[in-house]
Amino acid sequence: MSNPRTIPSELIELLGDRLTIDPTIREQHGSDESSHASHPPDAVAFPQSTEEVAEIVQICSRNALPIVPFGKGSAVEGGVVAIHGGVCVDLSRMNRILAINHEDMDAYVQAGVTQFQLNRHLDGTNLFFTVDPGAEATLGGMASTRASGTNTVRYGAMRENVLGLTVVLADGRIIRTASRARKSSAGYDLTRLFVGAEGTLGIITEVTVRLYRRPAAISAAICPFKSIDDAVRTVIETVQSGIPVARVELLDEISIDAVNRYSDLSYAVTPTLFFEFQGTPAGVAEQAAAVEKISQQHGGLDFQWTTDEADRERLWHARHQAYYAMLALRPGARSMTTDVCVPVSRLAQCIAETKRDLDACSLPSPLLGHVGDGNFHVLFLIDPDSPDELAEAERLNRRIVERALAMDGTCTGEHGVGLGKMDFLPLEHGEAFHVMQQIKATLDPQNLMNPGKVLKQTL
Amino acid sequence: MSNPRTIPSELIELLGDRLTIDPTIREQHGSDESSHASHPPDAVAFPQSTEEVAEIVQICSRNALPIVPFGKGSAVEGGVVAIHGGVCVDLSRMNRILAINHEDMDAYVQAGVTQFQLNRHLDGTNLFFTVDPGAEATLGGMASTRASGTNTVRYGAMRENVLGLTVVLADGRIIRTASRARKSSAGYDLTRLFVGAEGTLGIITEVTVRLYRRPAAISAAICPFKSIDDAVRTVIETVQSGIPVARVELLDEISIDAVNRYSDLSYAVTPTLFFEFQGTPAGVAEQAAAVEKISQQHGGLDFQWTTDEADRERLWHARHQAYYAMLALRPGARSMTTDVCVPVSRLAQCIAETKRDLDACSLPSPLLGHVGDGNFHVLFLIDPDSPDELAEAERLNRRIVERALAMDGTCTGEHGVGLGKMDFLPLEHGEAFHVMQQIKATLDPQNLMNPGKVLKQTL
Repeated sequence: MSNPRTIPSELIELLGDRLTIDPTIREQHGSDESSHASHPPDAVAFPQSTEEVAEIVQICSRNALPIVPFGKGSAVEGGVVAIHGGVCVDLSRMNRILAINHEDMDAYVQAGVTQFQLNRHLDGTNLFFTVDPGAEATLGGMASTRASGTNTVRYGAMRENVLGLTVVLADGRIIRTASRARKSSAGYDLTRLFVGAEGTLGIITEVTVRLYRRPAAISAAICPFKSIDDAVRTVIETVQSGIPVARVELLDEISIDAVNRYSDLSYAVTPTLFFEFQGTPAGVAEQAAAVEKISQQHGGLDFQWTTDEADRERLWHARHQAYYAMLALRPGARSMTTDVCVPVSRLAQCIAETKRDLDACSLPSPLLGHVGDGNFHVLFLIDPDSPDELAEAERLNRRIVERALAMDGTCTGEHGVGLGKMDFLPLEHGEAFHVMQQIKATLDPQNLMNPGKVLKQTL
Repeated sequence: MSNPRTIPSELIELLGDRLTIDPTIREQHGSDESSHASHPPDAVAFPQSTEEVAEIVQICSRNALPIVPFGKGSAVEGGVVAIHGGVCVDLSRMNRILAINHEDMDAYVQAGVTQFQLNRHLDGTNLFFTVDPGAEATLGGMASTRASGTNTVRYGAMRENVLGLTVVLADGRIIRTASRARKSSAGYDLTRLFVGAEGTLGIITEVTVRLYRRPAAISAAICPFKSIDDAVRTVIETVQSGIPVARVELLDEISIDAVNRYSDLSYAVTPTLFFEFQGTPAGVAEQAAAVEKISQQHGGLDFQWTTDEADRERLWHARHQAYYAMLALRPGARSMTTDVCVPVSRLAQCIAETKRDLDACSLPSPLLGHVGDGNFHVLFLIDPDSPDELAEAERLNRRIVERALAMDGTCTGEHGVGLGKMDFLPLEHGEAFHVMQQIKATLDPQNLMNPGKVLKQTL
């Protein structure tokens, strides 16, 4: 680790012991959960308010110091890696729930609140927050990466669930992007501009999100298949039938094996779908029966459904641990994770061709995904010190992305661009990429907001 | 009407008889359905392709001519009024449905396709397009104003239903804003930037929208109330109960009277809710029973529901004609229409205070709205030649907007800013208004794209 740059004295005066250059803490803030090489920031700041973030940004701006926002560090595209050093703005102490508006079914929180924290806070009410990326993440981070997850097929992604944001801009201005009205036609949609901008246009400090009514009944189901193609076709037909499935997750045979080992389970080691149904008691039974019929038509081996809460929680706990279960397939490995999303009509072909690639791959490479949205992941478990393995994973990742783009899909369905998908953005967007560059240059002319992420070149 | 500016010969060469300076056609393109004073463009162009729109824009850009996009002219905030003259780009001949992707449940259309045309095209399939602003409108226009309407409480507005756009920028570049993937985290959300930009950042020439599965059963209900407050509280409790009502519309006693006269109906002349329920046959019965119970608890006078298609169509036809029915209350009048949207928890108070304002108003001023979203309209029926009436309507409109903003609402829920809400945008957005100005200046440095709309001042 190189010696840090000199930190402006005014920043130290502002934050006192909430600014640190401690090497261990800097190192902790230099990487996320992925295989992207770590690079620590020069200092880590722990602001407690929007106004303090604005002051930090102003000081950094005057001193031409890069600013990298940090939530939980649970992302996988290197978005928090401080490749140009600078000040990491860790928002974890901005973790106050500012308001729950029960009648309006929304929550107003500081950006460091996590989705688990918010849902624990809502325990005992009839409301819940739907977006579920699996790992614990802050709402600010989830908004910044336009996160989604298992519930998105039913309730939408952060794009649909953020009502408004407080954002600190590159020059320290503080803006609020929208009122709490459920809809508005009042000018440009700044909320959606900052959702998914990954901190490159400003730092999200507060988030207002939609909440949903808890369903009266929830049931889960699991169904193994002979082939991954059968499983995918079951999902496609389920979605196209208009069955309002709340979750539908695919795990291939390698993923199921990993989950069995990690969570001490004994699922059949074969491609498997996990379902969740939400609604009235009669409704969830109706949905499960309809999906069972579809799965049988596609060679489903043993459709089992349950309304037992403990069974259901065990199933989804296993799914939520899948990322760590897969990492455990190869101790010491890091993951390079693909994240393409294609129109559902192309999903079976996209996964089939990808599985053929993986058959010829020397690395452990489990596949799983939120297939109801057309989104799936391959985890390439690599030795981070092996250039050969990195090269193999990069080559296959590129093949998968190019395949998805040729199918009118996207290089990243939910993880964001970070460092990992930067090369693909111009491929995916063509001339529109230059519009993104123009917006970046306008709102961050010094290129200090999470520099070197999302856009490979700036204007 | 003043003499038109000289039209560049290269524009005439490009379009031939699809460019006109005919005064009648120019006049037709100088206003919408509202009371905003008409101002014709200098010429009207009828392009047939995105490439042709790009050429028109390039020619106008070289000649510093304003460019005003035009769909059906059915909007109500003056967005199409050519206040600075220039070339009106009428997209009505770009009305081809380019693809219906049944498996992916989306449609790819030229911007001049209307929502009625698209739904007629989908007759006989199991899919439909949900966004329903009432009047016939083009999808390009609906995207540009971030339109919503009666179905939004269930299916979302254009913001949620547009998957991607083709846009011609101010310098003639053509971009596609997104792939057909259902979700993406690949860079800035340009789709949402152009949805609601009202042609001030570029011209939308193609639109990809989500389609939904037609429900197995649809039923409608109507319920009169003693007071508007009872009706509003019924809606609030319905929404908060998580009942997935597809439509819930409020008409006050003046609106109901207008509808009765215009559509030869005999509804009780009292505040009334129109409902639509969609789902399985059992589901719609369950929903209707639940809403009937809620309405009875709030003094509903006579909840009547029907599964008969003719009854249902008569009801919604009456609702869709409501704008024209209200105009007919005062022959020769034009409407200045309010469009605030507030958090649902504030709706009863907002409507009650507004009704007190209207009691003291000398103008016919019916109130109706998409109250499930917190959005309602007052139509001030004014003599467009009377400065006094205009001033009274403007004064009350301002009171209503200021009330909504104080309740953390928005000045426009679905109509857009156009000319009519420009004064309120800085009030609503504060510093964020300047970010909108920065984006406008970046993407349209000559200020030729629908100039003088949305943003009162440009940088």
